Amino acid sequence: MNETAAIVPMRWIGPIRITGNTVNDEVSVPLATFESPLWPSAQRGARLSTAAERGIVATLVDERMTRSILLRADDAPTAHRAVRQLTAEFDRLQAVAAESSRYARLIGFTRQIAGNLLFLRFEFVTGDAAGHNMVTLASDHLMEHILKTIPGVRYGSISGNYCTDKKATAVNGILGRGKNVVTEILLPADTVASTLHTTAAAIADLNVGKNLIGTLLAGGIRSANAHYANLLLAFYLATGQDAANIVEGSQGVTHAEDRDGDLYFSCTLPNLIVGTTGNAKNQGFAADALARLGCREGRAPGDNARRLAVLAAATVLCGELSLLAAQTNPGELMHAHLKYERSTATK
Amino acid sequence: MNETAAIVPMRWIGPIRITGNTVNDEVSVPLATFESPLWPSAQRGARLSTAAERGIVATLVDERMTRSILLRADDAPTAHRAVRQLTAEFDRLQAVAAESSRYARLIGFTRQIAGNLLFLRFEFVTGDAAGHNMVTLASDHLMEHILKTIPGVRYGSISGNYCTDKKATAVNGILGRGKNVVTEILLPADTVASTLHTTAAAIADLNVGKNLIGTLLAGGIRSANAHYANLLLAFYLATGQDAANIVEGSQGVTHAEDRDGDLYFSCTLPNLIVGTTGNAKNQGFAADALARLGCREGRAPGDNARRLAVLAAATVLCGELSLLAAQTNPGELMHAHLKYERSTATK
Amino acid sequence: MNETAAIVPMRWIGPIRITGNTVNDEVSVPLATFESPLWPSAQRGARLSTAAERGIVATLVDERMTRSILLRADDAPTAHRAVRQLTAEFDRLQAVAAESSRYARLIGFTRQIAGNLLFLRFEFVTGDAAGHNMVTLASDHLMEHILKTIPGVRYGSISGNYCTDKKATAVNGILGRGKNVVTEILLPADTVASTLHTTAAAIADLNVGKNLIGTLLAGGIRSANAHYANLLLAFYLATGQDAANIVEGSQGVTHAEDRDGDLYFSCTLPNLIVGTTGNAKNQGFAADALARLGCREGRAPGDNARRLAVLAAATVLCGELSLLAAQTNPGELMHAHLKYERSTATK
Amino acid sequence: MNETAAIVPMRWIGPIRITGNTVNDEVSVPLATFESPLWPSAQRGARLSTAAERGIVATLVDERMTRSILLRADDAPTAHRAVRQLTAEFDRLQAVAAESSRYARLIGFTRQIAGNLLFLRFEFVTGDAAGHNMVTLASDHLMEHILKTIPGVRYGSISGNYCTDKKATAVNGILGRGKNVVTEILLPADTVASTLHTTAAAIADLNVGKNLIGTLLAGGIRSANAHYANLLLAFYLATGQDAANIVEGSQGVTHAEDRDGDLYFSCTLPNLIVGTTGNAKNQGFAADALARLGCREGRAPGDNARRLAVLAAATVLCGELSLLAAQTNPGELMHAHLKYERSTATK
Repeated sequence: MNETAAIVPMRWIGPIRITGNTVNDEVSVPLATFESPLWPSAQRGARLSTAAERGIVATLVDERMTRSILLRADDAPTAHRAVRQLTAEFDRLQAVAAESSRYARLIGFTRQIAGNLLFLRFEFVTGDAAGHNMVTLASDHLMEHILKTIPGVRYGSISGNYCTDKKATAVNGILGRGKNVVTEILLPADTVASTLHTTAAAIADLNVGKNLIGTLLAGGIRSANAHYANLLLAFYLATGQDAANIVEGSQGVTHAEDRDGDLYFSCTLPNLIVGTTGNAKNQGFAADALARLGCREGRAPGDNARRLAVLAAATVLCGELSLLAAQTNPGELMHAHLKYERSTATK
Repeated sequence: MNETAAIVPMRWIGPIRITGNTVNDEVSVPLATFESPLWPSAQRGARLSTAAERGIVATLVDERMTRSILLRADDAPTAHRAVRQLTAEFDRLQAVAAESSRYARLIGFTRQIAGNLLFLRFEFVTGDAAGHNMVTLASDHLMEHILKTIPGVRYGSISGNYCTDKKATAVNGILGRGKNVVTEILLPADTVASTLHTTAAAIADLNVGKNLIGTLLAGGIRSANAHYANLLLAFYLATGQDAANIVEGSQGVTHAEDRDGDLYFSCTLPNLIVGTTGNAKNQGFAADALARLGCREGRAPGDNARRLAVLAAATVLCGELSLLAAQTNPGELMHAHLKYERSTATK
Repeated sequence: MNETAAIVPMRWIGPIRITGNTVNDEVSVPLATFESPLWPSAQRGARLSTAAERGIVATLVDERMTRSILLRADDAPTAHRAVRQLTAEFDRLQAVAAESSRYARLIGFTRQIAGNLLFLRFEFVTGDAAGHNMVTLASDHLMEHILKTIPGVRYGSISGNYCTDKKATAVNGILGRGKNVVTEILLPADTVASTLHTTAAAIADLNVGKNLIGTLLAGGIRSANAHYANLLLAFYLATGQDAANIVEGSQGVTHAEDRDGDLYFSCTLPNLIVGTTGNAKNQGFAADALARLGCREGRAPGDNARRLAVLAAATVLCGELSLLAAQTNPGELMHAHLKYERSTATK
Repeated sequence: MNETAAIVPMRWIGPIRITGNTVNDEVSVPLATFESPLWPSAQRGARLSTAAERGIVATLVDERMTRSILLRADDAPTAHRAVRQLTAEFDRLQAVAAESSRYARLIGFTRQIAGNLLFLRFEFVTGDAAGHNMVTLASDHLMEHILKTIPGVRYGSISGNYCTDKKATAVNGILGRGKNVVTEILLPADTVASTLHTTAAAIADLNVGKNLIGTLLAGGIRSANAHYANLLLAFYLATGQDAANIVEGSQGVTHAEDRDGDLYFSCTLPNLIVGTTGNAKNQGFAADALARLGCREGRAPGDNARRLAVLAAATVLCGELSLLAAQTNPGELMHAHLKYERSTATK
């Protein structure tokens, strides 16, 4: 196994003006991507954020990290009794989890019983770490405790896919996994016209036809957006995240309204799994990026990760708004594509 | 906007023995990832491929790339008539698409009508390119042709999300998008015991409980696997792909059978969007990787991309099998996690 | 097993004015339900249909009935070869299917390969029958033929759930199953105000917030409506249908637009499985209802079933529009609920 | 509107032997259906329940009824503050709900925020009523209270589809709606052979291939069964239920295991919405059926409805097991279909 590296070009976009319950700042953000048109597109969105009175309003709604274990019970009555017993002694579970880590704190659990199969989905806060390893280790401890103290259940799997990590499901959006951030922007009609060359009505209609109905017809699951995945991938790579989490991270909802010509535009991202410590984040380009983003200065555990999630979400809004605006205008797009295609070897 | 780069560590795994309708070879593959445990895990799977009589049997089942446009019709009767007219003059559509590119060839289209909204999903073969830009450009031409020749329809969007690109939906697996590759391996009982420290029955049971039922309970959509996303991300980054396509690429199915103690194990990946030309693939580390993978030598257009898709799918099997085997064994996992955690700053 | 009967109260609603490619008529329709508020609600919608210039415009977009068989192949290469062979000799398959029934005609098939599992989804037209039994019998014949002529495949199941019958999936809307009918109505602003006590804008906004985004957040699959299931159940029971087909029948999309104060309102129902012959439809109340609906007079096979599907879809629009209008108005609903509740024993 | 009735033939199946945390009894159950083959099929399952040592083991895991309201907030920060305020004064919400009904009791609520849209999903226990009307009335009261006390939010809809009633979604199975019942049976190998003419291995394999993988490939959502909808429809009609609730009721999971030749077979039905009072249930055939089922004798509120849910779930297991067994055997099915087809007019 000889080692080398993949080099992904990176640019800083911004500044993006952000206000809200976590970040009140003007911040530039890094995007690492092979798809270079992403940069000017996001940059146009960033420019709009500084044209909006409150900038991008970002609301951190929730945070938690989860792991579901799978147990094999003798039968459903045994599984049901196990759940009741574990619910009754939840503080004991918290103590067990606490032994596994200084940072992971068990805040709840839910269950699914399917026949004799018992899935326990443990929910933690994990400080500034994304928390994949922390919650696995804590779940290992919890598993061991359960196997010792609950009769009639056997080991099934340390991960039962009801977590759910990096798979397209509904559970994360419904029960929560990662940071849940809503971003919104309010743009005057003339800004929409001058910067985006479109109208609020056109964007709202496009969002309904394409993001809501188009994705629905495709059999989409909790997804109504144009390209959250592109923005998240670039942001995650640039900040040393486990970028495979774009699978669930990209399951979000764009909602737009025409308010008498002004544009209300929002991106809801309920499953942002990000951290500012661990793996690639502690040194090299990612550490530099995190420092420059102001994600090294948090006073309380989790402050840095929360800030990072908000920046990711605001970046998504910039790119989503810009692309949707472009897609309302057939001429603009055809021109852009032709220009772009001409410079590639594929034609 | 100052430029720099994200550096993702990369290692070569293998050799992987592959047989089938596209590749018959022993090949090492590159994985670029911040999650270093992925390398030894995939390497264990690779080792198994050389222990299997036919190696990993990889079957390329289909290939096509798609773009759906959105049209706004006067009403559903108008949309319905439009579809009938376009169906009748399909060869004209092919000619229009052919004008846009030397490589993109229109091979079919399907439709969805929702009220007055008309979605046309065009299907192309795109040679060795992943084809995102090619099919957009061809769809631009088709859109222009349709707006000129079909009465009562207006521009809606050059992309109507019924494509579907980088969103978690069902349509790609049902109608096809990208390369559809099935990989299989047959392992003798003693190899399962000696290399994976488990049994065929344990893996088959785990697959049912975790990948099938666990994901189902989570509200998963066409997803039944442990971590295809991890392998695909690392493979895509290492070969210069648009890695946001792991969103749909990771929607695949693991199926395992206990055959009298021997293990039948398969990974089905219906939505692999890969290319060997365009963007990052023509120079630098990705070009080197593609050359070393033998993806520069194809004689017919598409040969290189098909080979790449098969290598990606075989790599996924290596990593999936290894992780599932590990998860059948509580002791092994706890040990691995503890060892891993101890070396990080998160504890 | 002693026999008796469930008696479901039934009323006739209408007349509903319908125009389009299948029905041009004013028709009253029967609704059998225990939920009596459904009648006045649907009746209000019917009244609107006679206020619209073209009435309810109903477009039959497609029709087919399907059954998927499951085969177990030696491996994926065998499954892949089987598909290619069957595709090449499709006319032979048609002949085999034709032997099973005078009415069932095989018009196509699609495949899914997952590891060694091969699903073949056969598509038929079935005349005036819903076709459940016809396509099962034809698939039995096809299965027998395939097992005899294709090496390396074994019987898996006569139904592999990729059909899909009476389960909530995406495949039926994407590939087609049953009748696909789009219904639309255009109402002047003053009619919306006087009859529905609301505005086009309020209905369009409610549809986006509730039917599109609300269902999406719930993890819905190809469903964006308020209560298609209620209308379909009542219509299906009243006409002797297999009412369990409301499961997929109710997977449809409501789309509304505010057109300068006028209301454009549409219901798209891609999976209406109905018949006018077979089981309960040949005698008794259902036969009477079908006769009164004009579903006994079709000249070509399938005419009656197509008419019935269109009537069902138009009925759905009546009830959907009426409920959505009511939900835009908090006062109206609270009043209705209080009035209703007072008459029941549950308070 | 002239009134008449739909007459659905009904037969009693059984006795079914049931044990568990709610019912310990041998009970016959009524099935009203136009599809007569359902009766002998369910009867075969009932016969097996008396052959199993513990009969069908039925575990009631949970019960609740829900309604989600939709509010339009000024923006996401306002929505977020509203949720925090309502969480803090939950006992006040309980008091408001309690004023609306003697039986409905608010036990919790969850939220979704998408941009400025706020969905509150209220959870109630509703005694012996299915509770549709009760929870709507209670939600009306809660809506009024919220609009009065929370600044910056406006009425959106009394039902926001995040409930979710009669639509195919994931939320009900994840958060709970209706009764959650698991039914299990353990059958000795010789009973499987003599009564079902198959083996435990054949049934387990069929369940994986058809119910789990087949439905997954179809883009199914939380559904893995052969025909729960058929059984539920018949049971619901026979007992005067709102049978449109089969849409979510049929979203359940069959899980089977081959235990050294013995068969473990289970049906998990997380969304059974049933009641023993209200509408059709208080008189006529349904009242008679409920009395005969022992669903008039409950001592505590909810006892009757819980018993009914368990009987429904046990009935589903009878029919599901019987059909799956039949589908393992190609000969048996072809014969049955031919016999059945010959007696109809469709051939």
